[in-house]
Amino acid sequence: MKKNANLYDPSSASLSEEVTETLYVDEWVRIERIISTGQASPEGFWYDQKENEWVCVLEGQGAIQWEDGSTKVLDRGEWVLIPAHVRHRVLSTSATPPCIWLAFFWKC
Amino acid sequence: MKKNANLYDPSSASLSEEVTETLYVDEWVRIERIISTGQASPEGFWYDQKENEWVCVLEGQGAIQWEDGSTKVLDRGEWVLIPAHVRHRVLSTSATPPCIWLAFFWKC
Repeated sequence: MKKNANLYDPSSASLSEEVTETLYVDEWVRIERIISTGQASPEGFWYDQKENEWVCVLEGQGAIQWEDGSTKVLDRGEWVLIPAHVRHRVLSTSATPPCIWLAFFWKC
Repeated sequence: MKKNANLYDPSSASLSEEVTETLYVDEWVRIERIISTGQASPEGFWYDQKENEWVCVLEGQGAIQWEDGSTKVLDRGEWVLIPAHVRHRVLSTSATPPCIWLAFFWKC
């Protein structure tokens, strides 16, 4: 488990890949900070998670695509609930500034 | 349940009191945004929560005091875990800018 001193610190960002850091985990919940720099999910890839997820964008912009083709653009300070097993993918993320996600997962 | 369009939007802040907005709640978790503008817990008051709490400061500064007298100052982007039944109080919060807390609570 890697700890960040600061949620806004972009120094662990990588241009070549998304970086996920677990800020907290126990048997019930998991809290992650994810820094994206323009990455998106591969075409045709869908997340299908066992956990509920509440995710917000702390900096930059990220866009989620749902299986029906609709999208949800999250600007800085916006959030979305992704219930377990609702298939989704990351459609796009900003690179400048990096997209900093804060995600809260819990079992249901 | 009041929904915010944006975590950073300070427009619901009140100089006279702390404002708590529930962003999400279900039987397992609760997510709150709290805007403080200089308020602190009353002297001698201690939170003693049944839930675990992970809380971060999105803007401004807030300080937590523990029952042993030690304190944890949270600057913008910093966070702390407050396990259930660990007694604590809010020692101080910034007014300019307001202290915007984002708190995740879960049962344990």
